[in-house]
Amino acid sequence: MVTATRGATRPRSGPLSGDQLRAVDAQWRAANYLTAAQIYLMDNPLLTQPLLAEHIKPRLLGHWGTSPGLNFIYAHMNRAIITHDLNAMYVIGPGHGGPALYANTWLEGSYSDVRPDIAQDAEGMRKLFREFSFPGGVPSHVAPQIPGSIHEGGELGYSLAHAYGAVLDNPDLIAVCVVGDGEAETGPLATSWHSNKFLSPATDGAVLPILHLNGYKIANPTVLARITGEELEDLFRGYGYSPIYVNGDQPEDMHQQMAAALDRAVMEIHDFQVLSRSGTLHRALWPMIVLRTPKGWTGPAMVDGHQVEGTWRAHQVPLPNVREDPSHLEQLDKWLRTYRPEELFDSQGRPSRVVTQMIPQGDRRMGSNPHANGGALLASLALPDPATFGVVTGQPGAVTASPTRVLGRYLRELMVRNAGHRNFRLFGPDETESNKLGDVYDVTDKQWSATILPGDQHLGPDGRVMEVLSEHLCQGWLEGYLLTGRHGLFSCYEAFTHIVDSMVNQHAKWLKVSRELPWRKPIASLNYLLTSHVWRQDHNGFSHQDPGFIDHIANKRAEVARIYLPPDANTLLSVAAHCLASRDYINVIVAGKNYTPVWLNPEQAALHCARGADIFEWASSDAGDTPDVVLACAGDVPTIEVLAAVSILRKRLSGLKIRVVNVVDLFRLQSDSQHPHGMSDTEYNTLFTADRPVIFAFHGYPSLIHRLTYRRGGHANLHVRGYLEEGTTTTPFDMLVLNKMDRFQLVIDVLERTPGLLEDAAAQRLRDEMDQIHDRHRAWIRTHGDDLPEVQNWRWEGERE
Amino acid sequence: MVTATRGATRPRSGPLSGDQLRAVDAQWRAANYLTAAQIYLMDNPLLTQPLLAEHIKPRLLGHWGTSPGLNFIYAHMNRAIITHDLNAMYVIGPGHGGPALYANTWLEGSYSDVRPDIAQDAEGMRKLFREFSFPGGVPSHVAPQIPGSIHEGGELGYSLAHAYGAVLDNPDLIAVCVVGDGEAETGPLATSWHSNKFLSPATDGAVLPILHLNGYKIANPTVLARITGEELEDLFRGYGYSPIYVNGDQPEDMHQQMAAALDRAVMEIHDFQVLSRSGTLHRALWPMIVLRTPKGWTGPAMVDGHQVEGTWRAHQVPLPNVREDPSHLEQLDKWLRTYRPEELFDSQGRPSRVVTQMIPQGDRRMGSNPHANGGALLASLALPDPATFGVVTGQPGAVTASPTRVLGRYLRELMVRNAGHRNFRLFGPDETESNKLGDVYDVTDKQWSATILPGDQHLGPDGRVMEVLSEHLCQGWLEGYLLTGRHGLFSCYEAFTHIVDSMVNQHAKWLKVSRELPWRKPIASLNYLLTSHVWRQDHNGFSHQDPGFIDHIANKRAEVARIYLPPDANTLLSVAAHCLASRDYINVIVAGKNYTPVWLNPEQAALHCARGADIFEWASSDAGDTPDVVLACAGDVPTIEVLAAVSILRKRLSGLKIRVVNVVDLFRLQSDSQHPHGMSDTEYNTLFTADRPVIFAFHGYPSLIHRLTYRRGGHANLHVRGYLEEGTTTTPFDMLVLNKMDRFQLVIDVLERTPGLLEDAAAQRLRDEMDQIHDRHRAWIRTHGDDLPEVQNWRWEGERE
Repeated sequence: MVTATRGATRPRSGPLSGDQLRAVDAQWRAANYLTAAQIYLMDNPLLTQPLLAEHIKPRLLGHWGTSPGLNFIYAHMNRAIITHDLNAMYVIGPGHGGPALYANTWLEGSYSDVRPDIAQDAEGMRKLFREFSFPGGVPSHVAPQIPGSIHEGGELGYSLAHAYGAVLDNPDLIAVCVVGDGEAETGPLATSWHSNKFLSPATDGAVLPILHLNGYKIANPTVLARITGEELEDLFRGYGYSPIYVNGDQPEDMHQQMAAALDRAVMEIHDFQVLSRSGTLHRALWPMIVLRTPKGWTGPAMVDGHQVEGTWRAHQVPLPNVREDPSHLEQLDKWLRTYRPEELFDSQGRPSRVVTQMIPQGDRRMGSNPHANGGALLASLALPDPATFGVVTGQPGAVTASPTRVLGRYLRELMVRNAGHRNFRLFGPDETESNKLGDVYDVTDKQWSATILPGDQHLGPDGRVMEVLSEHLCQGWLEGYLLTGRHGLFSCYEAFTHIVDSMVNQHAKWLKVSRELPWRKPIASLNYLLTSHVWRQDHNGFSHQDPGFIDHIANKRAEVARIYLPPDANTLLSVAAHCLASRDYINVIVAGKNYTPVWLNPEQAALHCARGADIFEWASSDAGDTPDVVLACAGDVPTIEVLAAVSILRKRLSGLKIRVVNVVDLFRLQSDSQHPHGMSDTEYNTLFTADRPVIFAFHGYPSLIHRLTYRRGGHANLHVRGYLEEGTTTTPFDMLVLNKMDRFQLVIDVLERTPGLLEDAAAQRLRDEMDQIHDRHRAWIRTHGDDLPEVQNWRWEGERE
Repeated sequence: MVTATRGATRPRSGPLSGDQLRAVDAQWRAANYLTAAQIYLMDNPLLTQPLLAEHIKPRLLGHWGTSPGLNFIYAHMNRAIITHDLNAMYVIGPGHGGPALYANTWLEGSYSDVRPDIAQDAEGMRKLFREFSFPGGVPSHVAPQIPGSIHEGGELGYSLAHAYGAVLDNPDLIAVCVVGDGEAETGPLATSWHSNKFLSPATDGAVLPILHLNGYKIANPTVLARITGEELEDLFRGYGYSPIYVNGDQPEDMHQQMAAALDRAVMEIHDFQVLSRSGTLHRALWPMIVLRTPKGWTGPAMVDGHQVEGTWRAHQVPLPNVREDPSHLEQLDKWLRTYRPEELFDSQGRPSRVVTQMIPQGDRRMGSNPHANGGALLASLALPDPATFGVVTGQPGAVTASPTRVLGRYLRELMVRNAGHRNFRLFGPDETESNKLGDVYDVTDKQWSATILPGDQHLGPDGRVMEVLSEHLCQGWLEGYLLTGRHGLFSCYEAFTHIVDSMVNQHAKWLKVSRELPWRKPIASLNYLLTSHVWRQDHNGFSHQDPGFIDHIANKRAEVARIYLPPDANTLLSVAAHCLASRDYINVIVAGKNYTPVWLNPEQAALHCARGADIFEWASSDAGDTPDVVLACAGDVPTIEVLAAVSILRKRLSGLKIRVVNVVDLFRLQSDSQHPHGMSDTEYNTLFTADRPVIFAFHGYPSLIHRLTYRRGGHANLHVRGYLEEGTTTTPFDMLVLNKMDRFQLVIDVLERTPGLLEDAAAQRLRDEMDQIHDRHRAWIRTHGDDLPEVQNWRWEGERE
């Protein structure tokens, strides 16, 4: 297993004294023992009795292979924390190594701090083992249940982005990030290495990546373990790191190598930070460690005639049939005793002095690092009053505004007010300006630590805006930032938010579980602004048209998912301020960047958003009476189309009683038994009626409205228009026509679905005219390349109609 | 803009003769002219009249910045194709450079081949310009409409994976892949460079990546343009490439540099392939080209006092107000005339001899490369009869089998039968063995061109299985493989298929548009096997539990989306064979890997799958009569739970008329007006009744069933159980209890929802017992760590009940 690699640090002796070496080794052995025992034992924790089948769990679930390496790093980090007085966090890429983290946090006492029922004694140890991967117990992966962690790691690829997010604006923090060599093959991880171009050595902390090159995944060797040492060195230098190598399998030698590597890395980080903070150096290669150890190191070498240690066979449970096969049981017994538990724990099961002497105290323990329970550090943002930044509109639709540009002004002020706290950042994949949030650049920069050239605008070594053309990095950095107790907003092209579907799944799971743990304090919500949305993809086409991210979020737990579709600039401000003040949610806001009518004054907007769904009385003609038909809308573009359809209908069919309902908070549509924002059936019927036709123009796929409302009494009368996956590069109005959500189609829908209406001659004429105008539209755009003048120039005329 | 970089090729003279240089330059200028003109002009294509505002499109939509570089590469590839007689495809990462590709394919005639209405003359040119980004025309991005393309590029990041997929098993093909420096920041692209470790130089073709380093994205510099030349060189050597540099902005010099670079790259590829194919060399660095040119090269240098050429301001439309601002109009006129169109096109608008002389003929034109219209090359797979591989079960549930293991045997035979054609591959993120498809390794290897060590199993330089720990790469390679006319299957942990949500969106869009183009021939379907699914995550926990990928697919167009939930091994075989024979679909199959009962014999399975949804008469007690209650199921685990619930009900309430309906083809539930597989209301009522309670146990989120059925008459009586986002590491049956889909809960549902049933004393007793057994379950698993023996040992007893 020991492979010579260029640049390896290979001291015969090293920085550790004999005492220190014994202490680090004891800590490592203790953690290895606790790790293996968690996978196998439900009783006899100290092996004080002969090991029997009845001590073994019926289902052996967990991952051994990566764990000895994680334990090795943890023990050495403990030594380095003491030696250098480090403020360090531990981010575990190979999150399946959960038992290693339970082991180390139990050894240092941080686990008992959050789980007082699992004390540092034999009974606590027994419970620790029994609970692991056991019904009613704790999961097999690193998870919110493990103190010190901000990263679950079950789905591989996000560790390094989380680590970089964690150290932003935490200049004294070091995040030690273990990257598995399997994980390193994922796309998100492969680009995460470049995060060092977005980190300020002066004002942010440091990430120390440790590539754990144990050579194998579940069933294959890893790419990085099977390229030449020269390629490996080149790759990481190309990524902007200076690798330090630790290779081998002989514990004593490896301890000295690892201690030397950590000392060197810590000193290089320190020197770089000192030089940067004194203004004398802005760019250097950051240190990283490449740790090459056997997979399943110290575990069974051979099982049933196959090599296990040092191969992919060590990935999960190296001895699979311990309960049934006496030879496996015997092998397990021998294996566990190789760690010499009697030296590591006293007769009461407490970690012995040799184990604890190189473990830091209090908040210096990685399991107790305050940043890893970010909610406990969280300070509320100083939020400007959205009303102050709103657009005053004399009457509905009298003025137009770009909603996101208005939000940009608000965010600019938010950045000014919170500048001193350095606890808010804006994240986006090269789209902040395109999404019209560029006013923030009046007061801050895009953070950039690579080369800056004359002519560059708004790039600086220290800025509140993080831009990189990777949705994965934006999301990963933001998650790391939020989980360590700060605030943020991710603005993204709507269609491409799907790139992070899987990441948001994992964050939603993290939030759900964290909410069930009293010691995990609420963190700031994960806020998305989806813009450049499906209905307005002017320079782009079909590839940029997909409103399905909100469908994805609608599958998340009701206690964490929130979806908002503000119809104009002022409602966007109100919703955004609400989201930025909230905790433990995933808030998705969908809003356009184009100039569109402002329907509500700021105070009206605040009230409308507080209600979440309400009647636009100023647009309705039912005068509080039961309407003949309800036109409902959710989303900025659908709201315009509904109001334009209402204009036509009110002009042409003056007797028709129309009600207009606008929905901002999408989960208002769901029942109050299903979602905390849901309406009762009575409220629903008060808005939508129980028996009148409802024509609903919706921003996204129509099925989402149906799935939120199918239990409502009036659902059979609900007819939803939305995106039908018809797209291309065309005019804005043609997109609506292609998807049958244009104003003329909505008029047709009203005419055809309101009982008896088409018996009226005026209605029949109107019906025909709508067909004619559709024909005219199609001919016009093909000739003129732009929408009909009457569509382009349409304005809501309010009371005059 | 000209930045010296280590290793740059900078010949004063070069390989091009004067004639060749003039020809390549003319081709480049012609393409640049056509590109700019597409963005701006709707008339006056040859500028034979003075340019007027009325010649300008009303909406200026498109991307100029990347296009001159794409044109430069295209012209040089044309020269290289002729010089070296190359079989070359062109994959465009910066797909927003659509006008460049319309321009080049029009110049070479391949565009007129597929669009005879757009001839190579002035009228054709006028139409070409007018149609671009125009209503009713063609999209602004590289898209299916462009011959020679297999890649849309609207969503950045997948070009290199597509290129590698395209050359697998095409030993004579070179895919030239332009990677944008913005795109290079995405995660998927960052890991795609490692694809060279999975390519066989002996039996596959070659990819020639060209990193187009034009320095800027929409609003920012790019990372790779702002690191040192040394870092850039190291990065690509680390990725396994030997970069060749082409830097500058002086056309003549750049033409010589680029021609020399391509000649060198082609020779290096050739030499490497020859040595590999003679068995003397297995690994070397592959050539790549780093092309550094100004963004918007040859476009307006300054606009309104700001530098445009060479900055991000050139990204879209460099002169934005041509129709309104006479100075912009004048500047456009001058700009277009710098290309000297009068030299490039004759008076009829045909490309002149100097332009065409270095353009290849026939299928050597990149727009006509047969591989880029894969359906035209597609040969059907020789599919074994699934019945031959099925499991014979005496009566329903009498034997158990691992569905995916049975499928593995089938795939093994499929590989044997099609070995000679080399047109089928299996893709998976390190999970083929874990997903129990490992029988394929009897007849093939995992393809691996990095180091192979003694002890490695099933790794070889040439194999049918592609394994890498990146869902993005698996998907990207498979898409490239399918789009060039081959077949494949992607097996993936269900939860992590979300990682490719956005990629499958783009593929679905590609299929939708391709189906509308008569010249694009149907390709093999994109087949997913989702396994290691939500209900059986033994070693893992909550992070691995998410059945939402099928929700995502359900949003795709009905003509491309198919979802199958086979209940056992034999139905899985039938469904898989069907999917592997199909064309132009996205087929999602969800099936478990654990040993579960086989309900249907192979012939019954085939019939059941053909019907898509049917009554399990052998499990029903309604004797063809109208039932009191319907128990429906979709998915392997739900089917077991429903049958177990039916066992209890039939034993205890013998008079109850129960019908069991199993759904394999999920879209059968939808109306036939919405999906081609949908049922009529009459069929639906025949299966599910119009008025009886239906208790539906579903594999995924319950809302998916509701959204498919909300228009059905009996929908109000439909009660769906499914995944409620309750998960952790626990026993298989506890997962069902946590999510209220266990057999005892289903019994309760029947008792509570069948009108009048609870008036019966036996039913009341049963109701109480179900609560008691839930209590017993909870206590038992916490003590014993495994499920109740009666649950573990349950078997369907069929007629004996």
